[in-house]
Amino acid sequence: STGHLPDRPLIDSLLLDAWERYRGLDEGAVADYIPALAAADPSLFGLCVAEVDGTIHAAGDVDHEFSIQSISKAFVFALVCQERGYQEVLERVGVDNTGLPFNSVMAIELNDGHPMNPMVNAGALVTTSLVPGASAAAKWEYIQNGLSAFAGRRLALDVQVYESEAATNQRNQGIARLLQSYGRMGFDPLETTDVYTRQCSLLVSARDLAVMAATLADGGVNPITREQVVDPAVCIRVLAALASSGLYEHSGEWLYEIGMPGKSGVSGGIVTIAPGKGGLATFSPRLDVAGNSVRGKRATRYLSGVLGLNLF
Amino acid sequence: STGHLPDRPLIDSLLLDAWERYRGLDEGAVADYIPALAAADPSLFGLCVAEVDGTIHAAGDVDHEFSIQSISKAFVFALVCQERGYQEVLERVGVDNTGLPFNSVMAIELNDGHPMNPMVNAGALVTTSLVPGASAAAKWEYIQNGLSAFAGRRLALDVQVYESEAATNQRNQGIARLLQSYGRMGFDPLETTDVYTRQCSLLVSARDLAVMAATLADGGVNPITREQVVDPAVCIRVLAALASSGLYEHSGEWLYEIGMPGKSGVSGGIVTIAPGKGGLATFSPRLDVAGNSVRGKRATRYLSGVLGLNLF
Amino acid sequence: STGHLPDRPLIDSLLLDAWERYRGLDEGAVADYIPALAAADPSLFGLCVAEVDGTIHAAGDVDHEFSIQSISKAFVFALVCQERGYQEVLERVGVDNTGLPFNSVMAIELNDGHPMNPMVNAGALVTTSLVPGASAAAKWEYIQNGLSAFAGRRLALDVQVYESEAATNQRNQGIARLLQSYGRMGFDPLETTDVYTRQCSLLVSARDLAVMAATLADGGVNPITREQVVDPAVCIRVLAALASSGLYEHSGEWLYEIGMPGKSGVSGGIVTIAPGKGGLATFSPRLDVAGNSVRGKRATRYLSGVLGLNLF
Amino acid sequence: STGHLPDRPLIDSLLLDAWERYRGLDEGAVADYIPALAAADPSLFGLCVAEVDGTIHAAGDVDHEFSIQSISKAFVFALVCQERGYQEVLERVGVDNTGLPFNSVMAIELNDGHPMNPMVNAGALVTTSLVPGASAAAKWEYIQNGLSAFAGRRLALDVQVYESEAATNQRNQGIARLLQSYGRMGFDPLETTDVYTRQCSLLVSARDLAVMAATLADGGVNPITREQVVDPAVCIRVLAALASSGLYEHSGEWLYEIGMPGKSGVSGGIVTIAPGKGGLATFSPRLDVAGNSVRGKRATRYLSGVLGLNLF
Repeated sequence: STGHLPDRPLIDSLLLDAWERYRGLDEGAVADYIPALAAADPSLFGLCVAEVDGTIHAAGDVDHEFSIQSISKAFVFALVCQERGYQEVLERVGVDNTGLPFNSVMAIELNDGHPMNPMVNAGALVTTSLVPGASAAAKWEYIQNGLSAFAGRRLALDVQVYESEAATNQRNQGIARLLQSYGRMGFDPLETTDVYTRQCSLLVSARDLAVMAATLADGGVNPITREQVVDPAVCIRVLAALASSGLYEHSGEWLYEIGMPGKSGVSGGIVTIAPGKGGLATFSPRLDVAGNSVRGKRATRYLSGVLGLNLF
Repeated sequence: STGHLPDRPLIDSLLLDAWERYRGLDEGAVADYIPALAAADPSLFGLCVAEVDGTIHAAGDVDHEFSIQSISKAFVFALVCQERGYQEVLERVGVDNTGLPFNSVMAIELNDGHPMNPMVNAGALVTTSLVPGASAAAKWEYIQNGLSAFAGRRLALDVQVYESEAATNQRNQGIARLLQSYGRMGFDPLETTDVYTRQCSLLVSARDLAVMAATLADGGVNPITREQVVDPAVCIRVLAALASSGLYEHSGEWLYEIGMPGKSGVSGGIVTIAPGKGGLATFSPRLDVAGNSVRGKRATRYLSGVLGLNLF
Repeated sequence: STGHLPDRPLIDSLLLDAWERYRGLDEGAVADYIPALAAADPSLFGLCVAEVDGTIHAAGDVDHEFSIQSISKAFVFALVCQERGYQEVLERVGVDNTGLPFNSVMAIELNDGHPMNPMVNAGALVTTSLVPGASAAAKWEYIQNGLSAFAGRRLALDVQVYESEAATNQRNQGIARLLQSYGRMGFDPLETTDVYTRQCSLLVSARDLAVMAATLADGGVNPITREQVVDPAVCIRVLAALASSGLYEHSGEWLYEIGMPGKSGVSGGIVTIAPGKGGLATFSPRLDVAGNSVRGKRATRYLSGVLGLNLF
Repeated sequence: STGHLPDRPLIDSLLLDAWERYRGLDEGAVADYIPALAAADPSLFGLCVAEVDGTIHAAGDVDHEFSIQSISKAFVFALVCQERGYQEVLERVGVDNTGLPFNSVMAIELNDGHPMNPMVNAGALVTTSLVPGASAAAKWEYIQNGLSAFAGRRLALDVQVYESEAATNQRNQGIARLLQSYGRMGFDPLETTDVYTRQCSLLVSARDLAVMAATLADGGVNPITREQVVDPAVCIRVLAALASSGLYEHSGEWLYEIGMPGKSGVSGGIVTIAPGKGGLATFSPRLDVAGNSVRGKRATRYLSGVLGLNLF
């Protein structure tokens, strides 16, 4: 890792370079488990870097909105660490990789009911159950406000995505109920699953994600609004959790290839954080078999190298 | 992470401070599965920082020699990546956390015979099987030379430890044989297990480990001898592999608390790497239930904080 | 196995002998996960044999009523096989031992969502979901009628047990929801779990269980009422399923020691079936660590031997 | 189960009937993991029933010799129970189904090193390690003598099969070594694996297998030689172990469909035992995906029904 980002015109030009290199890649397939995702335009491709001072570098479709999906896990985890203290969250949610798929129940049983980390669904559900608020509505408002603070603008719900996913989230309901039987949930399992489904349906753009990532990169200060969204000590732990489990059971490969904390979502977004420097977000709906955006991953790897972002 | 280490006198004083803070800690127990380890003096405690320019900071028993044990995995992995290319090693050994204990065979079966990462025993055995050399003797010589190059001095074998461990390494033999049945081994399983047992029995001091770590921190250049032991591109991958799996199934917690790639050994050593800055080594034989040196872990956490080493 | 039971006076005397041998055993502990079970009188001990011709042999507390618990699984499975055909039920529920505990979710995931057998909770829930009836009330009525037909008298619900268990059955709800996500459930998961909780709360005596077992022993004909409750072909399969999975992951040991299909319940009942001869039921609330009645298991093993019931 | 077999001419005619029904079935494939098995003539098909009084009923290729393979596990288990006592063998080998494949190492780890049952490879290796004899040669002689006593004639080794399998049995070597590390083996793991490989390479015919099965069916008395090979109490336990684990993780389905203890081998043999009545053996090399002879399984199921052999 170099100590600072390249000069701004060079960042602009490298971003454009990355966009041109990978825009023609048409490997992978758009997620199709719900109609709202299947309808995504596979040609969309956006790359955005937000520096910690608020400078934005963009290439392609950086303002197209899509549901945030699993990327929300990182930011809700940050909010809960801020509210509960990262030490309590370590005990209740954990930060160790399971070595198993994101929706594994075997991981829960092998670990005596512990959800293990906030990036797998079990841990994300427990995390959401710990969000402040005495009701599902209050928790949802807290999350919507919190993620909007990370983005620096009001984020809206994609009602169609939410309703589609709410109709097919039985496995998450089962996981939440199972976690309740282990005494792990901080709130009603069905209501928590519903709030979790909502948080995954928040609409963001690649630009939003870059700003959100830059907020984590700068000790919790939003580079646009200058709001201190979470404390620096929280950011450090969120980045560590992403480094170890952000890409589920493939997190090690991600770190080996890209060398930065990251998180991807099934709608085609990928966010990576360069501590002290800024955030990088990519968006392109075609996914590889592991569920990561094909163009996004390739562009992130390229940019990690040429921008000198690798932590190691 | 700050951009550089504090001034040298401050490092000296912080190291001494850490040593005094934790020297009185007598929690934990010395490893006792072989007599040679059980005989270790539990009062030993050494802390050493090697800067990338070769400056050494020491407190306590930094010249006491002990068997390197699992810490060897990181450096043999580096040697094999250097020789075979880190991409081939990624395919054959992997870098993903298993979520299971270091000696798990279930992890092997759940992953269709893939050893998963170089830090668990399965992956370490495959790694050692890939060391250059047509015979066990040649491989052993390569390893001894290679680890000596990392340390900047000739490292010797602790024959007593080697013989004790060779008499009790049936599980590793079983794992190696199992990996052979999956077509994963690059060399005879029994001979590989023997070489692996030897590599774990190499004698090092905390000072050696700090220099070895500093070599990884500086793109492969030994800070004392200035020898380029491995390439910078290899170092980056070794650090990523340590970050994701260096502490086995507790690697996430380590990263959450300490924020640096690390590796511990059952003889009481812990090594952590601050990329671009230097290496930190601790030595104290009493272990916690997870097999990590109690004083070493506490001192590492403290120093990570006060020296500004956390990557995130 | 001998071809027929001993003479009746000898059965009476052997039953009394067994009762006297084991009545003084006070190992084990009454189930205490709900108050209604914890309140059971640990001194209760009843033994009953029902021959296929309706002759009843009794010793001790054979008319004390207790909730049937897991023993219901065998008889609801029989009813569903009767209604759906044992071949369809084989496909949907399975009859293979999981090698894992009765409430394992790992077993479900390792088998791609298949519930594996009707004796573990996953399979019992799917079985109950397949009970005829368009509503939970209709299914419940079908089960109550069906188990009453096996017993030859109207069985009643223990409302207190039902309500206690309904308040603590989150794990079963989670399992049912998970099975739904795999497309395995034949009915709403929460309602099915409720019906299952009811079926476990039906009140039976050791005498009832002996008659129910004798019905399975005689090709489905109740020895008292002479009603053909299920077909002979169904009985054969129910007995096979009990032989392979009636005692969960310890079924092999049961068969090794006792040599008959059997099923135990956490309230202290055990039922074993001697095909063509009759049924044996024991009741005593103190359980061993595996959840089987201590006196009941000892008495069953003794009687299996002296009555010549071992199938092998 | 009926009390006795049909009249002899009827058995003859039913056997012929079964042979004609299934001789045309050409589903499945001959085992091909070693050349010696791959060379088997797929058209071979033999059916044999040995009554406990020594009457033999045969149809087709009942005198063709083939390697016994896994069927040996049942008989070596019987010999070891005879020598060590079935209670000690229960503790050291176990009789519970694993729910996992025959060569699983995960099963070993999930059960803290316990091999679980004598039919999976782990348990078979421990069983063979417990065979009397201070050397591998002595153990092998004991097994060859013992299985010959079951067959009523001297059984010979197929040297070609033995050598082929000895060259490819790394997984079994790994399992044996792993079991040694858990303190489970009664003899050197490599030598035990070699003896086990030999026992699997003994040559038998369908006629031999029927006689061996009839010996277990008649309390250990060979129906031809009248030798008491093992005690009745041993036979009872061997049959129980076969009932619960003879067909590995599909044992429950076998019992559900066929209702008798059975064991199959990868060379195409299947043996089933009707306690008190006799033994049934089938031979045909084409296997289904689970490794069971296609014609053999179909014929066994048919004959179990028409001969009234189902235990339930």
